[in-house]
Amino acid sequence: MTGAPRIAVDAMGGDRGPATTLAGAALALQRLPELRFTLFGDEAVLGPELSRHAELAAAAEIVHAPDAVAGDEKPSQAIRRARTTSMGLAIDAVKRGTADGAVSAGNTGALMATAKLALRTMAGIDRPALAALLPTIGDRDLVMLDLGANTECDARNLVQFAVMGAVYSRIVVGLAEPRVALLNIGAEEMKGTESLRDAAQQLRAADHLPLDFIGNIEADRLGRGEADVIVTDGFSGNIALKTMEGTARFVTDLLKSAFRSSLRSKIGFLISRPATELLRHHLDPNNHNGAVFLGLNGIVVKSHGGATPAGFANAIGVAVKLAQADISRLVANDLANVRRDVAEPGRGAAA
Amino acid sequence: MTGAPRIAVDAMGGDRGPATTLAGAALALQRLPELRFTLFGDEAVLGPELSRHAELAAAAEIVHAPDAVAGDEKPSQAIRRARTTSMGLAIDAVKRGTADGAVSAGNTGALMATAKLALRTMAGIDRPALAALLPTIGDRDLVMLDLGANTECDARNLVQFAVMGAVYSRIVVGLAEPRVALLNIGAEEMKGTESLRDAAQQLRAADHLPLDFIGNIEADRLGRGEADVIVTDGFSGNIALKTMEGTARFVTDLLKSAFRSSLRSKIGFLISRPATELLRHHLDPNNHNGAVFLGLNGIVVKSHGGATPAGFANAIGVAVKLAQADISRLVANDLANVRRDVAEPGRGAAA
Repeated sequence: MTGAPRIAVDAMGGDRGPATTLAGAALALQRLPELRFTLFGDEAVLGPELSRHAELAAAAEIVHAPDAVAGDEKPSQAIRRARTTSMGLAIDAVKRGTADGAVSAGNTGALMATAKLALRTMAGIDRPALAALLPTIGDRDLVMLDLGANTECDARNLVQFAVMGAVYSRIVVGLAEPRVALLNIGAEEMKGTESLRDAAQQLRAADHLPLDFIGNIEADRLGRGEADVIVTDGFSGNIALKTMEGTARFVTDLLKSAFRSSLRSKIGFLISRPATELLRHHLDPNNHNGAVFLGLNGIVVKSHGGATPAGFANAIGVAVKLAQADISRLVANDLANVRRDVAEPGRGAAA
Repeated sequence: MTGAPRIAVDAMGGDRGPATTLAGAALALQRLPELRFTLFGDEAVLGPELSRHAELAAAAEIVHAPDAVAGDEKPSQAIRRARTTSMGLAIDAVKRGTADGAVSAGNTGALMATAKLALRTMAGIDRPALAALLPTIGDRDLVMLDLGANTECDARNLVQFAVMGAVYSRIVVGLAEPRVALLNIGAEEMKGTESLRDAAQQLRAADHLPLDFIGNIEADRLGRGEADVIVTDGFSGNIALKTMEGTARFVTDLLKSAFRSSLRSKIGFLISRPATELLRHHLDPNNHNGAVFLGLNGIVVKSHGGATPAGFANAIGVAVKLAQADISRLVANDLANVRRDVAEPGRGAAA
């Protein structure tokens, strides 16, 4: 990347529409005044909306996209319409090199399929993976991948996910040597599938990587701050992620109904509102926004569909960090290291 | 089962030891005065403990077991010591027909391995599965299986789990036609693995079963009360179960630290304590106790390791219900029905 980072924004994506994506871009610009934007969407809608943000208007251009991908649109259909949708055109800008990264709050399946087709998988990676930031009980976020791009994965896929997840953690969370773990049904080495055991063996051998492989982690320890990157196949990752979402909602729903159960509880709730707001803040997906489709020739960040302007600005911030750090180059370097370590075990001891 | 149900209790298993297992048995006896017990464990410990429960003493006999399975003991080692451990002897009583079911709060892996070896898998079942009761946002518990007995499962395994889980729900939750769903990464039919798609096809064809197959369910809907039985392989089931436990603890830990964050929050917490107690009660595993290792020639119920006397009594209650309803016969009947429906599709339309 040379010069000021330019971000392609799918301005039509997400549950809250252009008012939110543009307000998010405006907020990102306040945080990083050197940013430049290309906003893709219906110019009849975006023009008036952009005129409400004077600073953004000076740093952004609108590119008209006649169509938008629907929230429930099938990936196969979204691919066919990519030349006319705001999502497809934003990704195309990354492909043509006129933007350093694309950010969309639209349909995840459509975004992954469109990005994969347009940008292609990078050399050395067999399958791209969806990675996200998740809250922990500590003060730094966890990176987890794959979250649903690949239903079944072999050891080679998992090792590549570990490398990409660690690079993502280094860039976005800022850790020099993230602790990487494999999600498994027991902490012992012999647990789980053959793919997991083989991946663990390769990661233990790969001792020239800027990461600390700590073995298996069980799902009840996910948010305890014991690992910085958690690697899994897309099926288990999706199950874990959605179980987390569902359980967090389950507990907070129960709590809400409990608080509503008596006048005394209602009064207690009003008094302790700062505490429950603290909880809400910690769990708010806007504070952990910026899932990334890793392993492509280009940067594509997925914002939560329901993101606020602040959440969307966080997703833009992730795209900028990945572009400035040149994530593809870092991943390629680490992959070369893994190949050498696996081919020549003991290289670490001799070095 | 003929006559009064007799339950074999592994009196040494669990984190809280014999005082709790015997108090649990005494409580179960208060609820169901016709029960009889055989208590396995160190008679020097159990004798004095039993003398504190006059009614239980009149309904129970102690069988001395010189050894106990350790909480971290490997299943392979527990199997070798089964002839002298309280767990092994309790299971052996089921095998010999001197007890109608065994209940243990001990090491899950050891219990599954010992039970499988002693009781053998029942005819028509390829692999036994671990099933548990889980809370939902509604007023009835959910049955979920497999929770870790089988790392990889094919369609045939999943269909058998569905049959066994539905029988368990009928007996323990009391539903006439439980709604059965497959845990998957999307609601659409084509989602997930080939095993899941094949299992769904067979369950749709099996229309002579006392269950309502409702298709796929995603992990964020687990506790919403939309399904009564959720079927999955042991890897994903273990991931989902442990993610639930971890996330519930994560949210309640955050809440606790938030409530401690200021004097105002502390006061609010004290006032709203009835509400938080309601939450604790709903999530308390003692109120959903009684995981079952289904598919064996005999009933083995696994209590939570940290169960209170009330929780252990609930696990005993599950064993009694399964014995009285003759779960093996019900499972065998339903399996015969599945085989006919899959062999003769459309039998339902003609009937």
